[in-house]
Amino acid sequence: MLSKFNLIHKLKATFPLHHPTSIQGIGDDAAVIDAGTHYKLATTDILAERVHFDLTYHPLKHLGYKAVTLAVSNIVAMYGIPEQILVNMAINDNVSLPMLQELYEGIHKACTAYQVDLVGSDTTVSATGLMITVTALGSADKKHVCFRKGAQVNDIICVTGDLGAAYLGLQVLNREKQVWEADPNMQPVLEPYSYMVRRQLKPEARTDIVQTLQKLPVLPTCMIDIADGLCSELLHISKAANVGVAIYEDKLPIDQGAYETAVAFHLDPITCAVNGGEDYELLFTIRQQDVDKVTQHPDITPIGYVTAVAEGVRLVTKTGTVVPLKAQGWQT
Amino acid sequence: MLSKFNLIHKLKATFPLHHPTSIQGIGDDAAVIDAGTHYKLATTDILAERVHFDLTYHPLKHLGYKAVTLAVSNIVAMYGIPEQILVNMAINDNVSLPMLQELYEGIHKACTAYQVDLVGSDTTVSATGLMITVTALGSADKKHVCFRKGAQVNDIICVTGDLGAAYLGLQVLNREKQVWEADPNMQPVLEPYSYMVRRQLKPEARTDIVQTLQKLPVLPTCMIDIADGLCSELLHISKAANVGVAIYEDKLPIDQGAYETAVAFHLDPITCAVNGGEDYELLFTIRQQDVDKVTQHPDITPIGYVTAVAEGVRLVTKTGTVVPLKAQGWQT
Repeated sequence: MLSKFNLIHKLKATFPLHHPTSIQGIGDDAAVIDAGTHYKLATTDILAERVHFDLTYHPLKHLGYKAVTLAVSNIVAMYGIPEQILVNMAINDNVSLPMLQELYEGIHKACTAYQVDLVGSDTTVSATGLMITVTALGSADKKHVCFRKGAQVNDIICVTGDLGAAYLGLQVLNREKQVWEADPNMQPVLEPYSYMVRRQLKPEARTDIVQTLQKLPVLPTCMIDIADGLCSELLHISKAANVGVAIYEDKLPIDQGAYETAVAFHLDPITCAVNGGEDYELLFTIRQQDVDKVTQHPDITPIGYVTAVAEGVRLVTKTGTVVPLKAQGWQT
Repeated sequence: MLSKFNLIHKLKATFPLHHPTSIQGIGDDAAVIDAGTHYKLATTDILAERVHFDLTYHPLKHLGYKAVTLAVSNIVAMYGIPEQILVNMAINDNVSLPMLQELYEGIHKACTAYQVDLVGSDTTVSATGLMITVTALGSADKKHVCFRKGAQVNDIICVTGDLGAAYLGLQVLNREKQVWEADPNMQPVLEPYSYMVRRQLKPEARTDIVQTLQKLPVLPTCMIDIADGLCSELLHISKAANVGVAIYEDKLPIDQGAYETAVAFHLDPITCAVNGGEDYELLFTIRQQDVDKVTQHPDITPIGYVTAVAEGVRLVTKTGTVVPLKAQGWQT
């Protein structure tokens, strides 16, 4: 399947932009479209059954919420305000009326939480699995929109929240599913892992961070959301901005419970934080002079800095060893 | 499946609009979003294998083109200019690299034909069939945007092109497929039906009509594209504008070859024209004083007029019989 995704990547590069209003096409979290006084943003995401979610343990209400979160998070990552969504759904015979109702309840909750309007939708039958596509639209100030390419040498790299918990939530859910499949009388043990499970099943888009930064005020030089894992997003920034980055292992924000769960699962907590994905936190760069403004914020952590491109994308371990980072995130 | 679509219809009605920029949500060809000096338009459509297309006879290049046409046609139907598209694709193992390349070639051709920019995409693996979702964005002048609700009593109802040929193309393709399945040595006989087959496999969005009407100049009072069939679209206008409509059988534009094919297939040509769907022609209403401007246009046909809502949605036959129209279009 990998060669197909590579081909699509190449094919997409052959599409020219005809309209002067198309400021940014494929290659950032969202497309940027000139609307005169401001920019309009547009982004689209698919969630496919058995690829992105497992209905054995993903409550449909959470799934509806998550589908909206993914798209909204992309708008936020442009330093934008999400405003509208369009939802497409392919539903199969296994999806009953009460299930559909739950799914829409989740979408409704997300619309309220993110203050976005459902303005379009198309629904079809599906020969097999459930598939949800959400397109999100939003606005950004022309002077403040954050492209990936904006990162500059010596900028400080920051992340919001903590990393790796969503991935560990998935490991917990998969383990409990296996236990249940082996003996359907077993009840899943999720209580000790509730934070991680919630991070996996019902992640939140960080709409609050744009407001926080505006109040400080700090204007990031670049921003991206952590969908495929920190490493993958750092590589995106590196490529788009033609820079290198260095991040420090001892600075990575990892939830204590997630750290302990990783160890219990014989996983490296740092690898989970760096390659885990699906946290939907924000990764952004700021100028050095702005660092003092963000360090007091409990939910923003400086984790490294931007270097010359020749230095590559690197992790500096606690012992001072320098490790080059390579993408290991989800392919889809 | 019908009850699910009804439920979704009801559920969607419970979503409030939070943003003053959300001028029109669900319920027209495209969402309308205030962008200050003008409106932005957004619409989304799914094409699912075995529901909307059959890869036995649908060339992938045409399929890619058609997927873009569907979304672009919705922008045009708001009297808008299509500008950008976002494409989502779920691909399965049966889709080979050359097939993918053909699909993108079709999308590329459509982008050139309609002068739209591909600005976003997401691709995933699919557990089974191929699925393509296209979201189209566009712009409309605030004074000229055409809502379905704009139709007024005594306005004249017009359609572009001819009706029913796409449906007959589908009948031809399905017949030839059955012949081929019975005897794979048989070559399909499509030549005599090439117009109808093309209307089914590679329909065109009528971007030219908006330009034509602007030049005349004629500003329609309402507009909709004929995706699900003339009857279905007339019912949409009737509901949105709270009006009745009367159309005349002898005015319906039907291609001569399509008419003869319908008769040969033991189908009623009028039923094909009224309920066929997938023609992607435009249905619009104009004020009576503008009729003379459009009657000279070879591709615009007045077919009836708008009445009081109490009179319902009616077809007046050649013999003067009045038949109430009920939707029989595609459910999906």
